[in-house]
Amino acid sequence: MADFCIFCEIVAGRQPARLVHQDESVTVFWDIHPQARIHLLVVPNQHIRSLAEAEESDPLLLGRCLQVAAKVAREHGLDRSGYRVVTNVGPDAGQSVFHLHFHVLGGNRLRLPLG
Amino acid sequence: MADFCIFCEIVAGRQPARLVHQDESVTVFWDIHPQARIHLLVVPNQHIRSLAEAEESDPLLLGRCLQVAAKVAREHGLDRSGYRVVTNVGPDAGQSVFHLHFHVLGGNRLRLPLG
Repeated sequence: MADFCIFCEIVAGRQPARLVHQDESVTVFWDIHPQARIHLLVVPNQHIRSLAEAEESDPLLLGRCLQVAAKVAREHGLDRSGYRVVTNVGPDAGQSVFHLHFHVLGGNRLRLPLG
Repeated sequence: MADFCIFCEIVAGRQPARLVHQDESVTVFWDIHPQARIHLLVVPNQHIRSLAEAEESDPLLLGRCLQVAAKVAREHGLDRSGYRVVTNVGPDAGQSVFHLHFHVLGGNRLRLPLG
């Protein structure tokens, strides 16, 4: 557990967010700085700093994050038009919140390249 | 199983690729059109069309893909500098091969926005 983690606070309901899904292991809410028409964040309820730290953790939890990403994308009408799921690790990727999160982006044509 | 799938062929060893990892469930190889200095593709050995089709499949397999992504990123020296993991679904995201794959991008500062 981090000293203060904004995503842990959102998971616990102590900070406001536009929630779209919450279960015993995963929470999803809208990104407050959207980079696409639809931009959701899928986070494990458990504090994991990034995917780099998840290498030795529960693979089932990681898989559940991706399945929930697919579910919320479908529920927002993106399963036919398409969407992108992204996780950023560390400085070169511009990770800004150090609680593992998967961006779900869609609702418009997404740009390339990826890197 | 698709009629012809280039990633199924690579997994089976019938098409050449610069492999960096292969186990009973996941294969990793270099992207032939790199979008960053390091650009690897992590694919499940099993043919799954995209993450949209993975919503009802084995979450453990999806989690294993992410753990292997973290492992190969670390092995390529990206765990400190950072990296991005991306999967594209459908037309708006520019998915071009219809076998689920996770891009692992790093080795240079990666661009934003994501969408």
